Amino acid sequence: MSPGALRIDLGRLRRDIEALAQIGRDADGGISRPAWSPAHEEARAWLVDRLRAAGLATRVDPAGNVFGRLGDGESPGPVVMTGSHIDTVPHGGPLDGALGVLAGLECLRTIADSAMKLPCTLEVAAFTDEEGRFYGFFGSRAMTGSLDAALAARLTDPDGLALGEAMQRAGFDLALAPQARRDPRTIAAYVELHIEQGPWLEAEGVPIGVVEGIVGIRRRRLTFVGQPDHAGTTPMDRRRDAFFTAAEYATKSRELVIKGGAGRSVTTIGVVQVLPGVPNIVPARTALLQEIRDAEPVVLERLAGRTVAAARRVAKRRGLTVEVDELLRVEPMPMSPRVQAAIEAAAGELGLSVKRMPSGAGHDAQILAAVTAAGMLFVPSQGGRSHRPDEWTDWAAIEPGVNVLLGTLLRLAPGR
Amino acid sequence: MSPGALRIDLGRLRRDIEALAQIGRDADGGISRPAWSPAHEEARAWLVDRLRAAGLATRVDPAGNVFGRLGDGESPGPVVMTGSHIDTVPHGGPLDGALGVLAGLECLRTIADSAMKLPCTLEVAAFTDEEGRFYGFFGSRAMTGSLDAALAARLTDPDGLALGEAMQRAGFDLALAPQARRDPRTIAAYVELHIEQGPWLEAEGVPIGVVEGIVGIRRRRLTFVGQPDHAGTTPMDRRRDAFFTAAEYATKSRELVIKGGAGRSVTTIGVVQVLPGVPNIVPARTALLQEIRDAEPVVLERLAGRTVAAARRVAKRRGLTVEVDELLRVEPMPMSPRVQAAIEAAAGELGLSVKRMPSGAGHDAQILAAVTAAGMLFVPSQGGRSHRPDEWTDWAAIEPGVNVLLGTLLRLAPGR
Repeated sequence: MSPGALRIDLGRLRRDIEALAQIGRDADGGISRPAWSPAHEEARAWLVDRLRAAGLATRVDPAGNVFGRLGDGESPGPVVMTGSHIDTVPHGGPLDGALGVLAGLECLRTIADSAMKLPCTLEVAAFTDEEGRFYGFFGSRAMTGSLDAALAARLTDPDGLALGEAMQRAGFDLALAPQARRDPRTIAAYVELHIEQGPWLEAEGVPIGVVEGIVGIRRRRLTFVGQPDHAGTTPMDRRRDAFFTAAEYATKSRELVIKGGAGRSVTTIGVVQVLPGVPNIVPARTALLQEIRDAEPVVLERLAGRTVAAARRVAKRRGLTVEVDELLRVEPMPMSPRVQAAIEAAAGELGLSVKRMPSGAGHDAQILAAVTAAGMLFVPSQGGRSHRPDEWTDWAAIEPGVNVLLGTLLRLAPGR
Repeated sequence: MSPGALRIDLGRLRRDIEALAQIGRDADGGISRPAWSPAHEEARAWLVDRLRAAGLATRVDPAGNVFGRLGDGESPGPVVMTGSHIDTVPHGGPLDGALGVLAGLECLRTIADSAMKLPCTLEVAAFTDEEGRFYGFFGSRAMTGSLDAALAARLTDPDGLALGEAMQRAGFDLALAPQARRDPRTIAAYVELHIEQGPWLEAEGVPIGVVEGIVGIRRRRLTFVGQPDHAGTTPMDRRRDAFFTAAEYATKSRELVIKGGAGRSVTTIGVVQVLPGVPNIVPARTALLQEIRDAEPVVLERLAGRTVAAARRVAKRRGLTVEVDELLRVEPMPMSPRVQAAIEAAAGELGLSVKRMPSGAGHDAQILAAVTAAGMLFVPSQGGRSHRPDEWTDWAAIEPGVNVLLGTLLRLAPGR
């Protein structure tokens, strides 16, 4: 049997996806498996069981990453790795992350079940906290040695729970996480299958996206500091109202990103805190957590600078000050040309057209790209929807994507 | 001794004000005694003790209002009432409310200690939840029979604690609160001393403000409903971002109130909730709690209408919807000309100039005004500051105000 004739078993994969989607299920049909939560820990235990049932050598590292290995067990040599994550945003969907992990498992099962000679050791990984409840890409950063221990020690979730405390509750120790680091020479290549989470593949009728690069992210907290005053007795022109000032900035920053980003840059203010937070006191403080993303380093840097300047300008005009804290800085990351070529070749063999595109979302692949040849392929997302309960991709669109992943893994074997 | 020669004892009043300011004291020097909180209950118990120590007949009604009565105890006839409240906003100051209650107590003590014949029965009251942690003017509404029981049953504090539950913890029963109602014919008049909480008396060097009317309030929750989407992959022009839309509305509404209110109207957005509230999901919902205040019914109505129309217009333009819930509706309320005249006469006797002015803050006097002759006098606030720890009025500015209150109470005796 030639490698090119191998096909995954969609029914088997579908049963896994549907089973994992039951873990952390909300009443509204969404899925909430934030990293280190009880639902996430339950999902990890379930995944370890599934990897073992597939006959893979299974391991959980000190950062909570799960690995399933298919090899001869003696001198493994550099591995070809695939994977993604099983944590979700709150009220997320069933495919973001889960598809990449379970498709990887399905590829390894398909190869193991075939009569073919294993081209190299293969691994499937589920990386911890890709979504950044505490620390985005925590698991892949730990594995690649790019964890910032000082930052990790002070990060909390939006409710104020500390990362170290959350890990302890799950039976892990933050101080040991750096031990998850692996020598980069042991990883020959990494390829990740993911849903696009955007509208373009569906809109253009293309089944496979080949990711050329992943956008960079600047995530900052902008805290406008004004003055608390009585909401009835203080004339408008004597107020230093932190919320109205922050709102004025928000509108201005949106315009700056749309105009300066040529339609491709995006910005989101997803977390807002207003203090003291009662109806009859003029807000003294308003903190905005703002993200800006773009695939071009120069554009990203320019937008980050312009928006901060606008914040200072608006604050000054209204008699306030603004404090700026950078919370996350992810540089735009090109994907490996070799991995892109392997994906295109695998798709070509299956007669599938591809679209080269950037990824607007961050992925563990960009962390892996710092130490090895890393790439990604996308399957279309219905209506471009993601990070919400109705995130979906038809089974008929998933199947070719997983078969392309299978072909790519076989093509990436060292020395091939 | 003629009534006009009576003077209050500032030292005695000051000791009371300083003692009450220790209850609910924050680490930062502010005072937090929200209604029905343990600090508020402690303050009530302290006040009951002080009223009893002054020889007043003391009573706590089913709405938590505290009354101290000075009379002959037989056929009291209609009473002249003074008072205010002892609850505070979070991190408030030492005088808002407390001054009016303790000044009333000091006036009753001064009259009781004098040789003068009591002109009528006098009462000092501390009304519950003037600041509206749950239900603004709860106590004075209950006493005047204007409590909305259905509304009370569904109100919560900003953290979601139900009013009924908070009352139960303090040993009260929400269902019994309407029994606090008193026959309006038993209250001949009401006069309240309060700090101005605004800048005008200080700026103009006038010691006494005579309140002509109290501003009306419209408090509404505007909930912008958009669509959750991935913060990286969804192009800006495909988003229905509830926070950016709400921010755009906030800026617009501020302009409308400033322009349409001729510099006297005010608006505040003091509570903001953004959902799902994580950095990497486009906000699907944003709720703004907005207040608009003005002393003129026509102006208030016009601004309320224009801002809601603007919210619908902005939401529609961005592809969102907006839900509007009215949470509080207080009509502008003129003060009694008879009480205003009594305050002016009492000030005149002491050689003090007065300024007639509206009150930008709500006060229990506006609730009392629906059933009896009610009025207010102000003393200057340093820098116009209020609802914050550094709210202050010099003792030398408090003393004349309390003496004017004393003279006013004596002038308001029925049949005088």
